[in-house]
Amino acid sequence: MNRIPFDDVHKTLAAVLRRFGFSSERAETCARLFAETTRDGVYTHGINRFPRFVETIRNGRVDVIAEPVVIARFGALERWDGRQGPGNLNALAAMERAIALGREHGIGCVALGNTNHWMRAGAYGWQAAEAGVIGICWTNTMPNLPPWGGAEPAIGNNPLVVAVPRAGGPVVLDMAMTQFSYGTLESYRKRGELLPVEGGFDADGNLTRDPGAIEKSWRPLPVGYWKGSGLSVVLDMIAATMSQGHATHQIPADPLQETCVSQVFVTMNPDAFGPSPGTSKIADEIVASLHACKIAAPNARVRYPGEETLRVRAENTKLGLPVEPAVWNLILAM
Amino acid sequence: MNRIPFDDVHKTLAAVLRRFGFSSERAETCARLFAETTRDGVYTHGINRFPRFVETIRNGRVDVIAEPVVIARFGALERWDGRQGPGNLNALAAMERAIALGREHGIGCVALGNTNHWMRAGAYGWQAAEAGVIGICWTNTMPNLPPWGGAEPAIGNNPLVVAVPRAGGPVVLDMAMTQFSYGTLESYRKRGELLPVEGGFDADGNLTRDPGAIEKSWRPLPVGYWKGSGLSVVLDMIAATMSQGHATHQIPADPLQETCVSQVFVTMNPDAFGPSPGTSKIADEIVASLHACKIAAPNARVRYPGEETLRVRAENTKLGLPVEPAVWNLILAM
Repeated sequence: MNRIPFDDVHKTLAAVLRRFGFSSERAETCARLFAETTRDGVYTHGINRFPRFVETIRNGRVDVIAEPVVIARFGALERWDGRQGPGNLNALAAMERAIALGREHGIGCVALGNTNHWMRAGAYGWQAAEAGVIGICWTNTMPNLPPWGGAEPAIGNNPLVVAVPRAGGPVVLDMAMTQFSYGTLESYRKRGELLPVEGGFDADGNLTRDPGAIEKSWRPLPVGYWKGSGLSVVLDMIAATMSQGHATHQIPADPLQETCVSQVFVTMNPDAFGPSPGTSKIADEIVASLHACKIAAPNARVRYPGEETLRVRAENTKLGLPVEPAVWNLILAM
Repeated sequence: MNRIPFDDVHKTLAAVLRRFGFSSERAETCARLFAETTRDGVYTHGINRFPRFVETIRNGRVDVIAEPVVIARFGALERWDGRQGPGNLNALAAMERAIALGREHGIGCVALGNTNHWMRAGAYGWQAAEAGVIGICWTNTMPNLPPWGGAEPAIGNNPLVVAVPRAGGPVVLDMAMTQFSYGTLESYRKRGELLPVEGGFDADGNLTRDPGAIEKSWRPLPVGYWKGSGLSVVLDMIAATMSQGHATHQIPADPLQETCVSQVFVTMNPDAFGPSPGTSKIADEIVASLHACKIAAPNARVRYPGEETLRVRAENTKLGLPVEPAVWNLILAM
């Protein structure tokens, strides 16, 4: 593992994107989102994901010049068409508009159809919280998770983000509806470790902690068994309905072909009614109550969602972004 | 178990409420919500819960004459004070207003503080979906669940409801953040059964399927371990912040003393932009895709959230509501 300064990563990725037809400005922004993702410790969706993103440009799933457009407006609600543009740029624009709508109306919503994988879900939660508003957003995905009772992928892992602004650093929950992603299963398998809790079914339909057995069966477990399965379904329904875009069952079940996903971006303005004890104080007190909780084991910690992010960000900013040489060489050759 | 016609249950409960000072109209509505809860098969929060509800009237936690009032308005967002009135009447009024706001602005929100336990969470999802809008609502609760890494209850099970209108019957997800409620643990223990999956920790801190061991340790498991723990935290933060009401750590940790909870009611109007292929078609197609999924075992079924409700409702409407004689006699003596 090498360490490369943030700015060098940013510039290198932006240069690749320009070579694939991005305008300078869009290349800067798109590359920044990838670099920030690695900087914040979400290694699956940052630099390591970049080659696959480029692959979907090459195969035509991502249209690098397409910009999202609003197709319908009603009060605090807008419907947007992502026109199969780069998923992270589309999501950034949709959340930016949702933030403006939330400030104007107290609560606001952009429903975005025909878009592509937004990469790191939490990015748009940080975006909202850093702008001082509560952000709730989610995406549907290709079928990659069996619903409860089912034996084959038919629902999406549909990442859900809930973000709350706070002076001491935003609270950002970023959760997919699978207990463990395929990336996590792979990491455990390569380290020769069992999962900390049951993560899916083996070929015989038994719950297992063996990551390899789950990779083979394609039957990871939804968060909370039947509960996460149900949550995935309703998130898909809302995203497809509000955007009039595709639902999970209509999205190609191949990571390189996955496209035309549907997303929802909601913001609420905690300061809509003017000065008040404020978000930060209430959120701070909740954080303090968590930190005061009796711990379950000598080395246990009770954390709020996103608690580790600022520490990891500081470390990676100081030391440089951790980069796998093989991935980096691939990118340099693009 | 006896069966008593819906109307008889409704009238009996309403008469009790009038004796405790409810106006005729509010007694009718409050009693209807309890009767409908049992009718729809949510037995923990219907007739069986009524005696405990009356107990919180007797001990002053619930003020039967208090009506909720709006205390701040901004665009599509309102903040309400529940004035410690009956939780189900307050929630019904808040969702009714959120439905109107959603119709007026495309998306709408009521944040309700100083309210009481809303009983069946799903009721307000059905209310929204039957009015033709998407409904998302949640409540915080007293500390009744250890956060991930913690050994004592410090977060709430904070039920979350997501409801989508559909011609064939609404899709309504109603999920608490515990994998199994204490009521469910008790039922399994009384039947001498193990839980179908791990539901919490025993006294030694090991995951267990033994319901009695979890009841003793007071350490049920959050949905999805660390994920449901995080979701509970952010739902609490939003509810307390937007309503400027109490957060979980401020709510008395005793079911008979629990009061001043905070709730959020959000609606989105799928028809805001005028005629479209419509919610029902998209939701219908998603339901069809679930029903077409290969099942995991010969007796398995893939269901959408709330799928069983209409069948149970029809059965209980026809046969009468199932009532435990001991509970019913208690109510008749009130």
